Amino acid sequence: MSDTELITKSQAQPPYFVGVDLGGTNLKVGLVDEQGRPLARISVPTDVPRGPEDAAKRMGKAVLDVIVQAGITREDVAHAGLGSPGTMDVPAGMLLEPPNLRGWENFPIRDRVSQHCGLPVAFANDANAAAYGEFWVGSGRAFRSMVLLTLGTGVGGGIIIGDHSVDGEHSHGSECGHIIIDHHQDARMCPCGQTGHLEAYGSATAVAKRAHELLNTRPESSVKKRVESGDELSTLMLAEEAEAGDELSMELILEAATYLGVGVTSLMHTIDPDGVVLGGAMTFGGHDSPVGRKFLDRVREEVARRTFPVLREKTVVDFASLGGDAGFIGAAGIGRLAYRKKQEIRG
Amino acid sequence: MSDTELITKSQAQPPYFVGVDLGGTNLKVGLVDEQGRPLARISVPTDVPRGPEDAAKRMGKAVLDVIVQAGITREDVAHAGLGSPGTMDVPAGMLLEPPNLRGWENFPIRDRVSQHCGLPVAFANDANAAAYGEFWVGSGRAFRSMVLLTLGTGVGGGIIIGDHSVDGEHSHGSECGHIIIDHHQDARMCPCGQTGHLEAYGSATAVAKRAHELLNTRPESSVKKRVESGDELSTLMLAEEAEAGDELSMELILEAATYLGVGVTSLMHTIDPDGVVLGGAMTFGGHDSPVGRKFLDRVREEVARRTFPVLREKTVVDFASLGGDAGFIGAAGIGRLAYRKKQEIRG
Repeated sequence: MSDTELITKSQAQPPYFVGVDLGGTNLKVGLVDEQGRPLARISVPTDVPRGPEDAAKRMGKAVLDVIVQAGITREDVAHAGLGSPGTMDVPAGMLLEPPNLRGWENFPIRDRVSQHCGLPVAFANDANAAAYGEFWVGSGRAFRSMVLLTLGTGVGGGIIIGDHSVDGEHSHGSECGHIIIDHHQDARMCPCGQTGHLEAYGSATAVAKRAHELLNTRPESSVKKRVESGDELSTLMLAEEAEAGDELSMELILEAATYLGVGVTSLMHTIDPDGVVLGGAMTFGGHDSPVGRKFLDRVREEVARRTFPVLREKTVVDFASLGGDAGFIGAAGIGRLAYRKKQEIRG
Repeated sequence: MSDTELITKSQAQPPYFVGVDLGGTNLKVGLVDEQGRPLARISVPTDVPRGPEDAAKRMGKAVLDVIVQAGITREDVAHAGLGSPGTMDVPAGMLLEPPNLRGWENFPIRDRVSQHCGLPVAFANDANAAAYGEFWVGSGRAFRSMVLLTLGTGVGGGIIIGDHSVDGEHSHGSECGHIIIDHHQDARMCPCGQTGHLEAYGSATAVAKRAHELLNTRPESSVKKRVESGDELSTLMLAEEAEAGDELSMELILEAATYLGVGVTSLMHTIDPDGVVLGGAMTFGGHDSPVGRKFLDRVREEVARRTFPVLREKTVVDFASLGGDAGFIGAAGIGRLAYRKKQEIRG
């Protein structure tokens, strides 16, 4: 999936919003208009070891840079938004103990970024922000409610009902990777330390682990040869080998899709959204790739097999469409929601 | 759990709301004040075979009767609400193919009841209505969001976030009994025809079925003797025998509690509510009974073992408190929400 196309200032509809997508590797900052269309984007390394204070400064600077890049001024920007990995306290704007941002514990990141860019900043979980982005302008733009699963190293989740992001009362809402699909004691172990979670079956990490387990029983697989030649086993490698005809690779990808179909079904029976949208690296190139299409077909088949007739017929299950831009677009969208709420209160 | 206490007209705060709780066996109709306190209630047989048109007439009459019983007039009532088992189309006010109301297919029940009582009627799934009742004035009255599981013949669910009942886009929201806790092909069969659903492990039906499976392996159990003497095996019997010291009965009850803990954990990781509330006959007498307390302790232990530290510490897991009144109080509450929305729109 390529990045979304940039529009120019003359095409844009003010007011503007800036979104910051804070990841363990990169910081993405983008500026969008009232309709969520990006005018400018910047990506810089997060550089976690330099600490949160330094990063907050650089985020503030990137917000100002992206405003200049878009050819507007800070006064044209109504609000900013920041999506961050957890754990966090959303209402307080605090990072708590984020495992992907070691050394950043108990840091008031929302207010620090706000101080450094001089704009009000709304705060959200990164997957919830991405979900809001897809809901606002991506695959879910026609939906009244939506569930997003982000399939990467882990399985993230975001649930949007109406214009409400299900953050939960303790900032643990929409943790869809941690719903239990196998109650047995010997179920697979999730990186979070619990067993039987969807993430332990449907993440890229889970698929690579499963591939390692099966390699010795499948000497004919081209994956075995690549691993023996020193290549690192990844879901990208599996997708390449599956496309080249390797059976084991395709089986592993479809197995993950089947488990994801189980999780998607449970989410449909809980939320009953208009649609469930799948994003992240483990969508294998999406609709543009034969492997991606087979993966999606398998998820849909498992859902169809397991759900109620009405939902089988009506609920959309599809890929996300904003690629790596979903995070900053959604963060900007969360900023827009906060801005609108303030406008309402002011009457 | 006994019924909630009735208040008198002089204690009540107008306006008033009437709730109808339509069940497969009984119709309960109650009148409550602005604070959800009941002034009067009526229960009559549903008499399913007489058909939906006849029942709608009797529901309309019961609404008028309960108004008389409360000592007020129809003009004092702002709105009514109706909670019904599904399948249904909530926005259309239609029953579709309700398995517990055979012969009532595709019936516009909301509007027919409204015609027969002369009041506007809001419509909801029965478990969602009960959840709203507990949220409004019951165990969840201090919560901002809540999940209710109703444990009876099946496992019903209701999810309330803010003042929003998660009905879903296709009237299949909050079907918490049908989240999957075991993805394996050989998982237990749910009455809905699918495998691995929470209901297949945590309902009274599931527990009785499991008891039958185990009886021959446990000749010492007092349940075996009672069944051989002609008593029907029920969760009520299991509760009695567990209280009298029967080990098998207690094991079966705690096994169901363990599975319910798995489901509650998944719901906490999806919604992250302030609290999860358990109602219905399979709460074994609730806090007033030693068996009920052991059952709840086991649910809580399983949740504590499986969830994140913050949720372990903060999320309330407890029994519902409105007993059989939750349905009509919640239906009245849904009516009150509809009334308030109309007032807002009128400005």
